[in-house]
Amino acid sequence: MSGSTFGKIYKLTSFGESHGLAMGGIIEGMPSGVFVDEAFLQKALDQRAPGRSLVSPRKEKDTLKILSGVFENKTTGAPIAFIVENQGFDSTPYDAIKHLLKPGHAQYTYLEKYGIYDHRGSGRASARETLCRVVAGAFANLVLKDFGIQIESFLKKVGPIDCQYEKDFSSDIFCFDSINESKVKAFLENLIKENDSCGGIVGCKISNSPVGLGEPVFDRFEARLAYGMLSIPATKGFSIGEGFSSTLFKGSEFNDHFCNIEGKVGFTSNHAGGTLGGITTGQEIDFEVAFKPTSSIKKAQETLDLELNSSVLTFDPSAKHDPCVAIRGVPVVKAMAEMITLDFLLLNKLVKHSHVACN
Amino acid sequence: MSGSTFGKIYKLTSFGESHGLAMGGIIEGMPSGVFVDEAFLQKALDQRAPGRSLVSPRKEKDTLKILSGVFENKTTGAPIAFIVENQGFDSTPYDAIKHLLKPGHAQYTYLEKYGIYDHRGSGRASARETLCRVVAGAFANLVLKDFGIQIESFLKKVGPIDCQYEKDFSSDIFCFDSINESKVKAFLENLIKENDSCGGIVGCKISNSPVGLGEPVFDRFEARLAYGMLSIPATKGFSIGEGFSSTLFKGSEFNDHFCNIEGKVGFTSNHAGGTLGGITTGQEIDFEVAFKPTSSIKKAQETLDLELNSSVLTFDPSAKHDPCVAIRGVPVVKAMAEMITLDFLLLNKLVKHSHVACN
Amino acid sequence: MSGSTFGKIYKLTSFGESHGLAMGGIIEGMPSGVFVDEAFLQKALDQRAPGRSLVSPRKEKDTLKILSGVFENKTTGAPIAFIVENQGFDSTPYDAIKHLLKPGHAQYTYLEKYGIYDHRGSGRASARETLCRVVAGAFANLVLKDFGIQIESFLKKVGPIDCQYEKDFSSDIFCFDSINESKVKAFLENLIKENDSCGGIVGCKISNSPVGLGEPVFDRFEARLAYGMLSIPATKGFSIGEGFSSTLFKGSEFNDHFCNIEGKVGFTSNHAGGTLGGITTGQEIDFEVAFKPTSSIKKAQETLDLELNSSVLTFDPSAKHDPCVAIRGVPVVKAMAEMITLDFLLLNKLVKHSHVACN
Amino acid sequence: MSGSTFGKIYKLTSFGESHGLAMGGIIEGMPSGVFVDEAFLQKALDQRAPGRSLVSPRKEKDTLKILSGVFENKTTGAPIAFIVENQGFDSTPYDAIKHLLKPGHAQYTYLEKYGIYDHRGSGRASARETLCRVVAGAFANLVLKDFGIQIESFLKKVGPIDCQYEKDFSSDIFCFDSINESKVKAFLENLIKENDSCGGIVGCKISNSPVGLGEPVFDRFEARLAYGMLSIPATKGFSIGEGFSSTLFKGSEFNDHFCNIEGKVGFTSNHAGGTLGGITTGQEIDFEVAFKPTSSIKKAQETLDLELNSSVLTFDPSAKHDPCVAIRGVPVVKAMAEMITLDFLLLNKLVKHSHVACN
Repeated sequence: MSGSTFGKIYKLTSFGESHGLAMGGIIEGMPSGVFVDEAFLQKALDQRAPGRSLVSPRKEKDTLKILSGVFENKTTGAPIAFIVENQGFDSTPYDAIKHLLKPGHAQYTYLEKYGIYDHRGSGRASARETLCRVVAGAFANLVLKDFGIQIESFLKKVGPIDCQYEKDFSSDIFCFDSINESKVKAFLENLIKENDSCGGIVGCKISNSPVGLGEPVFDRFEARLAYGMLSIPATKGFSIGEGFSSTLFKGSEFNDHFCNIEGKVGFTSNHAGGTLGGITTGQEIDFEVAFKPTSSIKKAQETLDLELNSSVLTFDPSAKHDPCVAIRGVPVVKAMAEMITLDFLLLNKLVKHSHVACN
Repeated sequence: MSGSTFGKIYKLTSFGESHGLAMGGIIEGMPSGVFVDEAFLQKALDQRAPGRSLVSPRKEKDTLKILSGVFENKTTGAPIAFIVENQGFDSTPYDAIKHLLKPGHAQYTYLEKYGIYDHRGSGRASARETLCRVVAGAFANLVLKDFGIQIESFLKKVGPIDCQYEKDFSSDIFCFDSINESKVKAFLENLIKENDSCGGIVGCKISNSPVGLGEPVFDRFEARLAYGMLSIPATKGFSIGEGFSSTLFKGSEFNDHFCNIEGKVGFTSNHAGGTLGGITTGQEIDFEVAFKPTSSIKKAQETLDLELNSSVLTFDPSAKHDPCVAIRGVPVVKAMAEMITLDFLLLNKLVKHSHVACN
Repeated sequence: MSGSTFGKIYKLTSFGESHGLAMGGIIEGMPSGVFVDEAFLQKALDQRAPGRSLVSPRKEKDTLKILSGVFENKTTGAPIAFIVENQGFDSTPYDAIKHLLKPGHAQYTYLEKYGIYDHRGSGRASARETLCRVVAGAFANLVLKDFGIQIESFLKKVGPIDCQYEKDFSSDIFCFDSINESKVKAFLENLIKENDSCGGIVGCKISNSPVGLGEPVFDRFEARLAYGMLSIPATKGFSIGEGFSSTLFKGSEFNDHFCNIEGKVGFTSNHAGGTLGGITTGQEIDFEVAFKPTSSIKKAQETLDLELNSSVLTFDPSAKHDPCVAIRGVPVVKAMAEMITLDFLLLNKLVKHSHVACN
Repeated sequence: MSGSTFGKIYKLTSFGESHGLAMGGIIEGMPSGVFVDEAFLQKALDQRAPGRSLVSPRKEKDTLKILSGVFENKTTGAPIAFIVENQGFDSTPYDAIKHLLKPGHAQYTYLEKYGIYDHRGSGRASARETLCRVVAGAFANLVLKDFGIQIESFLKKVGPIDCQYEKDFSSDIFCFDSINESKVKAFLENLIKENDSCGGIVGCKISNSPVGLGEPVFDRFEARLAYGMLSIPATKGFSIGEGFSSTLFKGSEFNDHFCNIEGKVGFTSNHAGGTLGGITTGQEIDFEVAFKPTSSIKKAQETLDLELNSSVLTFDPSAKHDPCVAIRGVPVVKAMAEMITLDFLLLNKLVKHSHVACN
């Protein structure tokens, strides 16, 4: 797997299998001298962790352990290695079904590609891998907040139900919509009863970004965002600004016009979603990520065994599956956006000769 | 601009400004011993070139010139450099409006980021840059066809009009829909009269791909596709398989079930769009790319000048603009898919020890 | 520190400070399906570890712990993370001298570059970091031996004493010279009494390499070797074949002539050291690496404190320093050569179209 | 050939065969707003070009042509593409010997690796490729001089003759030694008469470098230097500071001691050659590069043909070969040092949080 590193300057290399000893990663490119607020990092990790209502309620205890790169609570510029030990899992239920092809799972393609597959909890293909991204995103956030950059993610759709984003409404399922949250919860509870799952859409906003982030022609801000978002398990789409609806606009309607706001360049609208020519405009960057329904469902499914005989897959009744992976995707979308934004912030320091020369 | 290289093994580094001496690039990672069919490459380039009905009808003559890496019609393993000289352009009309901020254009962000901007024909931010991708895609195709892999792209939507893909119908605007093509043309002609533009959606299918392409966890097949597609100017979204509609499915409906097709693993459906766990399944890979409306329109637009005074932007009446950039995007989407597919094909040879060892 | 990753396909990202929780790394690019002989890996690590006669005799217990990427004793293609916990160290002696600039040490440059320095045991700049390379080299060896490739390293010079390499002579200080080993030991014992140190030269031979490894023009086999070797702490030079003596040859003497050996291409000499045009010829690759004397010596040294006042540095009498770092460098040189050779072996599979196409 | 790119931020991707249409390259990572002094660039190129006394006196006219990335004499931040057209060459003499294995040449290894070889003027393996490095080095110099950094290279040894470096002595063969220059010229003229060649050693000094360049643990300043230098054709060794003589020092003699020079940190000696822990100390960086004798000699040489029959290789009498490639290597060594130093200067801006934050 050559694809375990993400980023150009601020880089995460992640490792770990769901039922192995530990998940973890190495962060390179973190500037030195940044105060490391461990409580903040652990809290970010807790956001992703199972245990919340309606999300798969395993009692894993995910504790962040920093192995290097921090001295007397400050980053040293050295690589930051961290691990989260895997605990409280039981591999036994996976043994009973290891000979069956699991619909919607990575098992078939991993077996074909690598010739070997750690069937316990999906091994490397487990969504548990995303906790490494959450840690790296939280570390990036330590720098971003010094620049006043804020990133928020939230549920925009669950199954057929649209959700609004209300800044001051709190929700343990990231559905910040005072009217629809209860509707969403009822919908999900019903799915659990049906032993089924649904898809969802996650929205994300990056506020207070400076003008100038993005490295054309290939490393446009939105291109790296799309890359990062589609690297999250179960994602099926990415859009920025008006996204797929852009086709319904005329150019004269879509173009965001410039206006003078207190002596500075402003815009009369934001159809583009915060970038022009692949570079941030200083407007809010807003994008969406589509998630497919959770593949692991308790409903019996017809399938084949590894010898290609017909069979039926039934997950262990004690197994706990998320009714909607998009919920757990919310903090992961945010984390990828944090990593990408910091990466571009660092890259942008190298562009102008005046930046380089100033010491 | 650190972002001018795309690819991990099969890499394109592109260069060139619209009104500079030449566009071009260097391709690294091309295997040696591949027969170079120059007529095929030039034909691919012609597909992208302006001059076709309804696309901006400039009379540029885009001629491919290979500078290195090919000897006696075969690739040598050395880097392949190519150029296409810029001809038949007139920079004068751009001088008259160079002091005005152009809505929807890269000019503002380039000026802020780099402190300097080649205003003639948008310089580096011109869509003309995409011809380098078309050349690199066509070179990749020379290898892909030896593997039987086929890639086709087409218009899926123009403004509000949906288009079907009919394999045997030919269309100079890539609208392979015998019923709707004339409707689309009429719609576009009307836009031209209105001095306006519209957006569109491009579809793409990769057929006969082997199982096993994609490098989790970050370099999932669809993640690199999304990256490549959103790096194309004017794109606003990417989706694979059911994309944003995935949210409307239940897991039991969405999961593609395995079946035994003549002793081999087959699938009863393809909601996922050809990948599982970020790795190709051997099914058709199908994805869509959304394009915003062309930013350059002849309709007068309110704007600011560089000193932030209110002004009105009117493009030169003689200027030729595409009514819908998605049309020109069709061969570019294909080219990026070709580059990405070859890159993964090469990377995949490194995964299994048995592949490595066999000499 | 953006420089913590080495390799193009077979990559090591290392982390860890000498007196932190653990040293370790992530290996990417290891093919799947390789049998993991843990005893072999631990033995390679033991070779580097302190405790042997004359090398700094700390009683560290370096135990390899593999966290990921191995399932049922085989590599899975997933990243291999490993750690070696730091034990048995005492940071107290370093506190007493932390205000003094240490001659020959990284402390001054780290402080200037990063603004922060973990003074305990040299932190990230400790030679203890090299154990991560030894582990990654040993993993690479698991593949190399399937190709029959053998790599051996040895002392070629200690202070002023030249050493020969006798294949069958064993030596706990890697001085495989039956005549000079005792002379070298006496020399080193005397240095220890003098509270001083000396430099040395390490030789290395790569046997049975296939023709064709190396990626011109920049990634010549010897260029990557030189890169890897000079990345080892305390190194001051690299040479291949006749090295710096090449200047004394005439072209007619230096050129290695081709001859027919049993129907295959052979050579009448090996002045070049096993490469032509940056690509291996199939001959033995032989090179040398120069090490400076150990910087840490017990002899009192004049220096400055951090406020630039004159002072005298005296290391704690209980401290254990290597009289010659080249000894500990022997397995590290080998490990870097192993990593580089495997990297090229993998890269070489991508060059010829026939290699790519064969599935 | 995946190895045609050098650098991490300031990157050169080079292309071209000796007897193809053109040599050239793309420079990425050049900051925007740098004044481009074309006369300076051409002059740097002229330094490398043949035509000078004793160096192979072909009458090639090497003219630099910049294709992109420069607008109104300033860099724009876009990739800078440049070409130098190949002229005045005659491929005929190479046809007569294309069936013979050439001792000391890349031909054998290229044929084995790629299965194809452009025999005309050595194709990609020609030392002519180094002109691309000279151009990229000269571009880097445009930035370095704003920082006051100066790089000089010179002959240190030709065959058996040692040369001193006298700052104010000028020499068309880069032998800046008023006493020995004539001796060197006589030695070379004699070699030409003998139809033979010799090796040499090139020295290089980087003055006025700031403290802090270098990215441990793998990208030590000297590691990247060694990498770059051994990537130059015909090189056999690299050393920094005392290099291979370091072994003859005791630690107490080798350590460079700190002293207070007008309130700043200074050093009493420079055995290390300007780095500690892989990071520049602010002292002069001095290193040496060893070159083997030119492989192409007019003296008849025994060899094999491609069918492995014994034969004799005699180059065309009209062919012009350098008696000592180290002479032409002098500006190439300088160019690689320029590229590497700028790369580290850019990377160093990313290390401290205070650097990042200052906008």
